[in-house]
Amino acid sequence: MTAVALLDFASVIVFAMTGALVASRAQLDIVGFAFIACLTAVGGGTLRDLLLGRDPVFWVGQPAYILLACAAALVVFFTAHLVESRYRLLLWLDSIALAVAVTAGVGVAMELGHNEVIVVLMGICTGCFGGLMRDVVCNEVPLLLKQGEIYATAAFAGASSAVIASFLALPDIAVLLICAGATWVLRAGSMIWGWSLPVYKARPPKN
Amino acid sequence: MTAVALLDFASVIVFAMTGALVASRAQLDIVGFAFIACLTAVGGGTLRDLLLGRDPVFWVGQPAYILLACAAALVVFFTAHLVESRYRLLLWLDSIALAVAVTAGVGVAMELGHNEVIVVLMGICTGCFGGLMRDVVCNEVPLLLKQGEIYATAAFAGASSAVIASFLALPDIAVLLICAGATWVLRAGSMIWGWSLPVYKARPPKN
Amino acid sequence: MTAVALLDFASVIVFAMTGALVASRAQLDIVGFAFIACLTAVGGGTLRDLLLGRDPVFWVGQPAYILLACAAALVVFFTAHLVESRYRLLLWLDSIALAVAVTAGVGVAMELGHNEVIVVLMGICTGCFGGLMRDVVCNEVPLLLKQGEIYATAAFAGASSAVIASFLALPDIAVLLICAGATWVLRAGSMIWGWSLPVYKARPPKN
Repeated sequence: MTAVALLDFASVIVFAMTGALVASRAQLDIVGFAFIACLTAVGGGTLRDLLLGRDPVFWVGQPAYILLACAAALVVFFTAHLVESRYRLLLWLDSIALAVAVTAGVGVAMELGHNEVIVVLMGICTGCFGGLMRDVVCNEVPLLLKQGEIYATAAFAGASSAVIASFLALPDIAVLLICAGATWVLRAGSMIWGWSLPVYKARPPKN
Repeated sequence: MTAVALLDFASVIVFAMTGALVASRAQLDIVGFAFIACLTAVGGGTLRDLLLGRDPVFWVGQPAYILLACAAALVVFFTAHLVESRYRLLLWLDSIALAVAVTAGVGVAMELGHNEVIVVLMGICTGCFGGLMRDVVCNEVPLLLKQGEIYATAAFAGASSAVIASFLALPDIAVLLICAGATWVLRAGSMIWGWSLPVYKARPPKN
Repeated sequence: MTAVALLDFASVIVFAMTGALVASRAQLDIVGFAFIACLTAVGGGTLRDLLLGRDPVFWVGQPAYILLACAAALVVFFTAHLVESRYRLLLWLDSIALAVAVTAGVGVAMELGHNEVIVVLMGICTGCFGGLMRDVVCNEVPLLLKQGEIYATAAFAGASSAVIASFLALPDIAVLLICAGATWVLRAGSMIWGWSLPVYKARPPKN
């Protein structure tokens, strides 16, 4: 198995758990857990594959991805009540899944020989769209849009650092590690220490 | 015309009517009715065709699908006010469309020779995503996420029963009938008698 | 560069600005601006290309589209506070982007030799889905669904007039100009003079 397939597997499992945690907030039944888990787990990678014209989409030829996502949903369904703060767990798992999925997107786009802009975009797509679909469908405020936190920014910075590392001719495995590390450190730093970029502030309305 | 094309036509018409009924709740004009009707009618099948790499997407080569969806929207626009409870009609039409569309998804995936996991998933995708897009765009609570009802579960059970029937080497037409029947009976039973699976319950918060 | 590529560029820039304006209403940071701008800018054309099986999707082979969208987002991030009414600006830019994108969709579908129904649908898809994704993701009421305004109707009428102009064997450039003109005049007329089609009215509930 290639490093990229491994990353896809890892991001599927962790994103599936975040999907199941959101399903627990919506008090769905076990099939609903599996549905939201699968949507979250494969959403970003599916979009990446459709955009890049990869045929078949990664999980269509490999049912193992879906079975793993369902297994993760099952585990969450029966154990989530043991967790003190499901929302905090959701945030942390999501940060890990983000880092891994950005890296998977970057890896696939690099393997296919795409240029730097597309590599960065595929990292962002793969990382952000699974969680975005989860939040839109379940009517949660998308983590992506939370003020005072960085999310897309972390994905962007991670994917960009991979492009730079690749430009410096670092070995592939180092490129992928740098990408995942940079994404996760920025997102985690934002959650712990409130790292953020300045947000847009409108003028106060005139009276 | 194949049995699967017939199922696609039937699900397009019935889903279009549900889309138009949701449009009537949002008080749109006639083009808005047609837009939401088409989105609902072809949404699930379009996702299925994109995921399976079917080219062209089923309605792109066959404008009749779209014209039928628009005709259904027109009929609803001029007659919906005659109905006592539009919401109840919406629920029942949606249950029929779900059953037919799950079966169309299963049929296409089987024809293309996909494995059991993909067959079940395509049934669920084709059945659930049209209605899900309709509800997300129109800002209704997705039927899929309603507590105390089965929806994705009915689609899952119907598609799974088709896989079992196919494993038992039943004739194709019986496989499709079992799929539609199982899906619809479960969904209808849920609406009439409140059949449901246990939902996730969080621990009560500690104080 | 073909007329259609030019239209794609123009719609990308203007839609990107509307996306950035919506991002300013959500008070996102600069990367969030770029993210929503890109989603809005290429959303409709991406759907069109996936549906028509164009490979690669228009911006995947041409990073310039994405860079332009990001540049537009940047400009809006630093200058939007100078504008008296950002919402009014958003509406007007959106009307221009709608007209241009409908025309780009119509042009691509005609170039590929599709029939009239698909030409009209691709015009509507390309014109409406970028803005729809923007509004759904940012939890705004989709402009498409605003009562008492025409939006999908303008797209439909513009695309239809292009089909008629093409049937009359007008030169390509005239067909495209008629399409953009008809769409924009109808949408602008709706915003200024309140042009609209009659909306669906339910019977008053019986008491």
